[in-house]
Amino acid sequence: MKVGETHYRTVWMEDSSVFFIEQNLLPFEFRIQRSETFMQSCHAITSMQVRGAGAIGALAGFAMAQAFLESAVTQALGTRNQEPGTRNQAPGTIHRSRVTIESTRPTARNLFYAVEKVFAAGMISADTAVAEALAIADKDAEDCRKIGEYGNSLIKDGFRIETHCNAGWLAFVDYGTALSPVYHAYAEGKHVFVYADETRPRSQGARLTAWELGQQGIPHTIIPDNAGAWLMSQGKIDIMITGADRIAANGDTANKIGTFEKALAAKALGIPFYIAAPLSTVDINCSSGKDITIEERSQDEVLYAEGPDDEGIIRKIRLASPGSGALNPAFDVTPAELITGIITERGIIRARREEIFKIAG
Amino acid sequence: MKVGETHYRTVWMEDSSVFFIEQNLLPFEFRIQRSETFMQSCHAITSMQVRGAGAIGALAGFAMAQAFLESAVTQALGTRNQEPGTRNQAPGTIHRSRVTIESTRPTARNLFYAVEKVFAAGMISADTAVAEALAIADKDAEDCRKIGEYGNSLIKDGFRIETHCNAGWLAFVDYGTALSPVYHAYAEGKHVFVYADETRPRSQGARLTAWELGQQGIPHTIIPDNAGAWLMSQGKIDIMITGADRIAANGDTANKIGTFEKALAAKALGIPFYIAAPLSTVDINCSSGKDITIEERSQDEVLYAEGPDDEGIIRKIRLASPGSGALNPAFDVTPAELITGIITERGIIRARREEIFKIAG
Repeated sequence: MKVGETHYRTVWMEDSSVFFIEQNLLPFEFRIQRSETFMQSCHAITSMQVRGAGAIGALAGFAMAQAFLESAVTQALGTRNQEPGTRNQAPGTIHRSRVTIESTRPTARNLFYAVEKVFAAGMISADTAVAEALAIADKDAEDCRKIGEYGNSLIKDGFRIETHCNAGWLAFVDYGTALSPVYHAYAEGKHVFVYADETRPRSQGARLTAWELGQQGIPHTIIPDNAGAWLMSQGKIDIMITGADRIAANGDTANKIGTFEKALAAKALGIPFYIAAPLSTVDINCSSGKDITIEERSQDEVLYAEGPDDEGIIRKIRLASPGSGALNPAFDVTPAELITGIITERGIIRARREEIFKIAG
Repeated sequence: MKVGETHYRTVWMEDSSVFFIEQNLLPFEFRIQRSETFMQSCHAITSMQVRGAGAIGALAGFAMAQAFLESAVTQALGTRNQEPGTRNQAPGTIHRSRVTIESTRPTARNLFYAVEKVFAAGMISADTAVAEALAIADKDAEDCRKIGEYGNSLIKDGFRIETHCNAGWLAFVDYGTALSPVYHAYAEGKHVFVYADETRPRSQGARLTAWELGQQGIPHTIIPDNAGAWLMSQGKIDIMITGADRIAANGDTANKIGTFEKALAAKALGIPFYIAAPLSTVDINCSSGKDITIEERSQDEVLYAEGPDDEGIIRKIRLASPGSGALNPAFDVTPAELITGIITERGIIRARREEIFKIAG
């Protein structure tokens, strides 16, 4: 999507370097970062410089490819300066690298998907691993574009759309999932209005979704997460669309904490509730939501907040009573029966085991 | 309740001065403020230096009494330095004062209740107005103590209680409503644990509820508002208790934004959901929730946050994308059918028109 007059992807690879939009600085500063090593790329995921299911998946694929490139260099050097008994280290290193990258974020399905595919390709050569990683990123962008096409069919002129967290293009390589139908509808000339849940504790809605929508000129407002059900009950919301971090084979969906609560409200108040996600988000080996591991993040994300003061200097302030702690589950699981449908790159399906197996099995 | 070793009420009157705990400074600084005039007391309400249904009600009563005291002084001066035709100004002033105090916060029922009673008492004399205001504050404290006694019967040893916003003693003159049963249970030796919703956008849960619980030594943790339904679904919550700003004759209840969403989640997940409130919160002339005016507050409460940095200096930071706006409805209405019961100073009743009329009609 465009930032100013330039088209960007959130993450891309040139030679052995990975480039990405530093999302921790957004929306206050737009900066491209370069990661030259596997470990730097892993750090970009753990530090959430890159976040969102698709962007993490693409970056993990690139990181895995970087590990093969680094391993190839080590092997080449090893062959030249070889000491007895050291030759078989590289395969062990690659396995350790895979464990490292897979332990950066436990919930994101796309990460495991990309790492698995690039790992298999890397068994042939490092170049094959890079090619596979590039293909995964391209497919992510194309899938999101198609999700926008299908999802657009749900959006009527004048619709008010609520979304949670950021499942816009910043969460993917391009276009996004939950916001892709909105971008598509807006580009077609439909009048749309987006209610963006601020999405505590990390405020991805207030920061990233609002920034994205602002860049594209789409009318929107930020709302406290607490206001969702109330606005639904007042007839202000026509449809809710969120993304997904992992979809189980039965349709249960892990997504940002608070998604479950919105889905309960939407169900009770008769608002259509859609998940938008590429099929790579489906984990067919995960039978139901009970099998999904929920990441617990640091309590400091709840207790403190960061942002610019009126002089633009980034400050970290304490929000909560000194001496009190906090819980910070990063995701929750929305049961399939609360989901009206799943918008995928191959069409809109119901969140039912048989439909999911047919399209993703 | 105690702060350190001293027992405090949140708001009290001595002679013509009103004293109150400056709640905007909590939990980072504990300070008592003195308001010597009617207008200062009104400002304490609009600026939310004093907030919470009962505390606002008591302060509004004191403010109305101050207006009578000031009017009496003006009249005494007027009689001494009288010019022709000026003698009847004071009654007009009192009516204007009533309009002023009633326009500070539109949703709080207790405010209108206290102003009405003190206004009627002031028709006799300023001293009668003061006596009435003092009686209202005393009754608020005693009502909250009784709510604690009745509510305690719902809390079993080992219970995990979720609460939203702050309906502890800081929201009333003493004891509080939603937290009064918790204080009572804890004092009796029951093991209790409180999940305090942080309650965006003003963080009264993370700041005031957590501070109160910490002062009394009650085990607790702060949770993002988004985590409520998830914790309920994981069997972590035994009961939810919140306060109320206004209860309609049919049991529909206005309370802090987000209460409605929690009540929907509690209903869907089989968690008992109680409202704790003195009967003065019931507005028998308000037939249902549809008749309750919902206050919209400044978008800046959502877009910015204030708190101390690591040197203790209070900073204001921007949380949201520059250029984006926000909606900030301060309250919502929870329909009676989602409420398991209402804990009052005269017992626990169902949120049904006939039971409410019997006890408060």
